[in-house]
Amino acid sequence: MREKDLLVKDIGEFSLIERLVEVLGPAARGAGQGVIRGIGDDAAVLQNNPGTRILASSDMLLEGRHFDLSYCKPRQIGWKALAVNLSDIAAMGGRPRWALVNLGLRPELKVSLVEEIYAGIAELAEEYGVIIVGGDTCSSRQLIIDICILGEAYRSEIVYRSEAREHDMILVTGSLGKSAAGLAYLRGKNQVQLDPDAGEELLGAHLQPVPRVHEASLLIRSGMVNAMNDISDGLASELHEIVQASGCGARIWVERLPLSPGTVQMANYAGADPLDWALYGGEDYELLLTIPGSKGAPLKARRLSNSLKKATGTSLSFIGRILPFPGVELVYPDGRIEPLAQGGYNHFKNSAT
Amino acid sequence: MREKDLLVKDIGEFSLIERLVEVLGPAARGAGQGVIRGIGDDAAVLQNNPGTRILASSDMLLEGRHFDLSYCKPRQIGWKALAVNLSDIAAMGGRPRWALVNLGLRPELKVSLVEEIYAGIAELAEEYGVIIVGGDTCSSRQLIIDICILGEAYRSEIVYRSEAREHDMILVTGSLGKSAAGLAYLRGKNQVQLDPDAGEELLGAHLQPVPRVHEASLLIRSGMVNAMNDISDGLASELHEIVQASGCGARIWVERLPLSPGTVQMANYAGADPLDWALYGGEDYELLLTIPGSKGAPLKARRLSNSLKKATGTSLSFIGRILPFPGVELVYPDGRIEPLAQGGYNHFKNSAT
Repeated sequence: MREKDLLVKDIGEFSLIERLVEVLGPAARGAGQGVIRGIGDDAAVLQNNPGTRILASSDMLLEGRHFDLSYCKPRQIGWKALAVNLSDIAAMGGRPRWALVNLGLRPELKVSLVEEIYAGIAELAEEYGVIIVGGDTCSSRQLIIDICILGEAYRSEIVYRSEAREHDMILVTGSLGKSAAGLAYLRGKNQVQLDPDAGEELLGAHLQPVPRVHEASLLIRSGMVNAMNDISDGLASELHEIVQASGCGARIWVERLPLSPGTVQMANYAGADPLDWALYGGEDYELLLTIPGSKGAPLKARRLSNSLKKATGTSLSFIGRILPFPGVELVYPDGRIEPLAQGGYNHFKNSAT
Repeated sequence: MREKDLLVKDIGEFSLIERLVEVLGPAARGAGQGVIRGIGDDAAVLQNNPGTRILASSDMLLEGRHFDLSYCKPRQIGWKALAVNLSDIAAMGGRPRWALVNLGLRPELKVSLVEEIYAGIAELAEEYGVIIVGGDTCSSRQLIIDICILGEAYRSEIVYRSEAREHDMILVTGSLGKSAAGLAYLRGKNQVQLDPDAGEELLGAHLQPVPRVHEASLLIRSGMVNAMNDISDGLASELHEIVQASGCGARIWVERLPLSPGTVQMANYAGADPLDWALYGGEDYELLLTIPGSKGAPLKARRLSNSLKKATGTSLSFIGRILPFPGVELVYPDGRIEPLAQGGYNHFKNSAT
């Protein structure tokens, strides 16, 4: 049988694990970076830096739900599975350090495809200094990539979603709705004529999002961040989570929401409202944060925005304010104010797995 | 709609998560036990005891592969999903502390069933002082329960599989093959007449295995354990892992393998060889360990066995010796010696998901 035609069911679980460890390279075998024992025992043994707290989060990507092999490259799927987890650690103010990767694999999948998924994980892991220290593989009906990420942070660095305060300025990194626009582009690719750069930008946002790890680190070091979330389920949902956890409310100005020209162009093609994508699209993995809104705050925010842009190339937009009373309001350009429903992506109600 | 008929697809992801947090009770919300922030932010924030190392492992249970709703109670499925993870931490010599639970749910499942699964997780978690600190839920084609467990241990307590040494005595807790016997019993229940106690014992071993956390802790405290594994993939597979990691070999005496009367009785009914179940059945979650085999070792092993039995009710059997050359040999009662293949449960080659 030719190597490239080899299927998961043709080789044993142990051979597959050996191949995946090969893909990870020497970093997976050796000690270092707090790894006392990595893959190859009942559990990994890890050493966090003295005085740090452990951050832990896990996210599962499912075939037919979060990705589709017909338009996602295996390498992108692996990348994204780790990226969404890195994003969670970044949003807490931590440094991602170690990951455990559980795979559910259809027996008919090619081994080379699984290796490509792993290569995508390994590529992003290397970029952010994350070591894959364990995992599990088993046979399943749909492709499952489930990653648990561990990070660390000193107490003073950790940012909770529950610490937003009245008058805080609400800021967001990058632009919103790009992932939803990218998905719409993918689905109608043959009918849509986008500017090539815009097309690449939207596809990248959906298929291979860059977690805002460096941005979060820089924002935290400013000492200004009160509350922070990453935007996995859409701005509306994440904002509701912040105000509910913090016991306050928020007002957002529609005209301040950062939309890329490509997103607007794609929405026009698709007959969709780019505002819907920005508020409810989800999977943008941008950071949503609040900083104190005291006197001089807008100037400070502008300085923060400039230094973020300079250091990382990522923009930071002032989109609203924290209010003392519950609920989230949306202010339209004509002055109209409407309540913003929590909405956001809901894994069961939109169900069509 | 009546509460008991409510389906996963009838309620949103956020309502479902709220219900599951309810099932966990107040322990999931409050701080304490090293939990600075549990469920409800982008990541959990955890504080390990100063000087400890972190142990991390993850295991996924899949419907149709590891369990079947037609003969497993939802509560048992939840229990087992956590138990297999606790077993990994125990086998390293650690204390399990925190867990993240990812669920993939078919939209047609009853909410009450999912709550029962969670109740099984919560029951076992409470018994061992483990706090559920996070997780993810999404819609899937088959029921998925994926748990990442975190534990801690001081350096001196950690036991690796790679530290077996020539002449070591090989010991195993409890009895072997019970889980495979339990599965055979479940599948042919209406045709098989077992002694009721034996039936319960086998069913328990398969459906609701008790992780050997207390046993591992006591064994570690003896200071005698060189190498240890939990038996998830069958004795043969785990033993090969120990000798390969340790650069040695092993000899096992067939007549010393602990088989319960119920396992032997069930094998007779099924026309199976109980030795096959003991060596290759897997899912026994017993501990396989080695202790130094120097002069006086058998006496020490007997004392260790007695104190384990007294403290936990669990037996400890001397089943073989570590040899200086590679490979594993099986010695039959008639003196015949044969190589023992690694075999064990293989998630892809036995594929019938």
